[in-house]
Amino acid sequence: MAVYTEVTDEALTAFLALFDIGGVVAFRGIAEGVENSNYALKTTTGDFILTLYEKRVDPADLPWFLGLMEHLAAQGLPCPLPVRAMSGANLNPLAGRIAAITTFLPGVWPRRATVEHCELLGAALARFHLAGQGFAPVRENALGPEGWAPLLEKCLDRADEVMANLGTELSGALQNILREWPKDLPSGHIHADLFPDNVFFLDGKISGLIDFYFAATDFYAYDVAVCLNAWCFERDFSFNVTKSRALLRGYMAHRALTAAERAALPVLAQGSAMRFLLTRLYDWLNEAQGALVTPKDPLDYYRRLRFHRDVASEAAYGL
Amino acid sequence: MAVYTEVTDEALTAFLALFDIGGVVAFRGIAEGVENSNYALKTTTGDFILTLYEKRVDPADLPWFLGLMEHLAAQGLPCPLPVRAMSGANLNPLAGRIAAITTFLPGVWPRRATVEHCELLGAALARFHLAGQGFAPVRENALGPEGWAPLLEKCLDRADEVMANLGTELSGALQNILREWPKDLPSGHIHADLFPDNVFFLDGKISGLIDFYFAATDFYAYDVAVCLNAWCFERDFSFNVTKSRALLRGYMAHRALTAAERAALPVLAQGSAMRFLLTRLYDWLNEAQGALVTPKDPLDYYRRLRFHRDVASEAAYGL
Repeated sequence: MAVYTEVTDEALTAFLALFDIGGVVAFRGIAEGVENSNYALKTTTGDFILTLYEKRVDPADLPWFLGLMEHLAAQGLPCPLPVRAMSGANLNPLAGRIAAITTFLPGVWPRRATVEHCELLGAALARFHLAGQGFAPVRENALGPEGWAPLLEKCLDRADEVMANLGTELSGALQNILREWPKDLPSGHIHADLFPDNVFFLDGKISGLIDFYFAATDFYAYDVAVCLNAWCFERDFSFNVTKSRALLRGYMAHRALTAAERAALPVLAQGSAMRFLLTRLYDWLNEAQGALVTPKDPLDYYRRLRFHRDVASEAAYGL
Repeated sequence: MAVYTEVTDEALTAFLALFDIGGVVAFRGIAEGVENSNYALKTTTGDFILTLYEKRVDPADLPWFLGLMEHLAAQGLPCPLPVRAMSGANLNPLAGRIAAITTFLPGVWPRRATVEHCELLGAALARFHLAGQGFAPVRENALGPEGWAPLLEKCLDRADEVMANLGTELSGALQNILREWPKDLPSGHIHADLFPDNVFFLDGKISGLIDFYFAATDFYAYDVAVCLNAWCFERDFSFNVTKSRALLRGYMAHRALTAAERAALPVLAQGSAMRFLLTRLYDWLNEAQGALVTPKDPLDYYRRLRFHRDVASEAAYGL
């Protein structure tokens, strides 16, 4: 769940007075989401989402995230549209945080992703990549390969609390990944965190892509690899190649993958597994007392990493 | 937050097919609530709340809770109305749980209760007590005085981990409370958990009373005492007698308190503080690994208990 910051009625009323979206009708914390505080806000004119940005989000990045969302929404992508205050600002202070109101998107995120979901997701990811091309500002991927060694460094002295020899094994795996990391692949704006709980479906279509706060400018195929990790493993950590084939088919119906991108998929998938493994490991070892979010098991991604390390080529993903 | 049980799209669709309330438009976990899993459900016909009852709720009690809600809603109280399936059932299985759909109530719960909130709350509590009188079935208060000694017993061997000498002190306090506990006061159905996050306000009125899953048949004045504890202490645990006076004024505008009820307020308030102290202490000592809810500090209620133990008479509450 995620409600870290409480908003008093007075503060909410004063905040809403900045906008031309009517008065408050209801205001409920939303359980989903990990990084920020999210509220379902109903006003006399409709449904909205109110997000308060918490400490893990750099305020300097917020205009980029909201600019990208505005751009993608204008391109017809089903992503939340930031609502501007009467001043024109889409970021305003609330309860000691910076906050934004965005449009409410209908739909339900899939608790059990099917092959059909994966194909639709692949298509939506490609459309995201293409639609982002007109948005000029760039954002470096803070959780891209340059970020992994420093993150592992912070976990090394206690990594073996999670599993015997984990520290040594991750150091070796990371060295391999960084050595094989591609130098040059087609790049642009990527979502970088398009897990099932960030994708809403309605009536057999994707109705919402949300949570843009890890988005960055990086290899498109890395985003594909994130989705392979997020959508194509079963609960027992077996890899469902029918799902990955559907995901890639959906993607390639809108944007072809180059030979270099295809060949890089195994190392990109290892890198993506490493990225989620490391942030989870860090959270696991540094669980805050009074945390509202239960840390996720880092070893889920250790298992994915091992799968990708053992594949011989992109054929393992159904290509 | 509270989402303990995930519901797949397929299960949700099949569940909704039992009702005549349209198809799903959105389905989001709600952060508020502690005992059950709650989802905001939007269908093609409107907004609803879907609740899955978790293990702390006895399924045998559910027809009583929902019957009381139906009765109170019919009396014009702003409480959720259980929606009946086409079969007539208001309780149906979902995702391995028993689940109910109720109407959505507008409003916002007050993060900072004011004197005005307290007066409105008192009035709503009295109306709740009066409106419940036509509902014949009774439910024993499992967390009433008979439940406290067994609960303390389960915590005694580790209570001193929370505070030095806490076990001995609570044993003595509980003996006093049980000795002074009134034998006979006006009784009926009480909410028993009417904390600020269970009360919605809109446009200066109470728009919703929710979360009936501790409701029981017990002394009305005990419910008043619960509200004194829940609404009239400041963050520094000082007691705000202006708030308690407003709460009691609001209550007595609809239902007079008898002399016996007034005289019993100090011990009822001690008992109510003990009840929340004990359940919190139990949860604190038995925090489940992977718990989605951070246990609340039991000592918040130790401080309230001490306040009520030191009051000379009901005059301390502004009577």
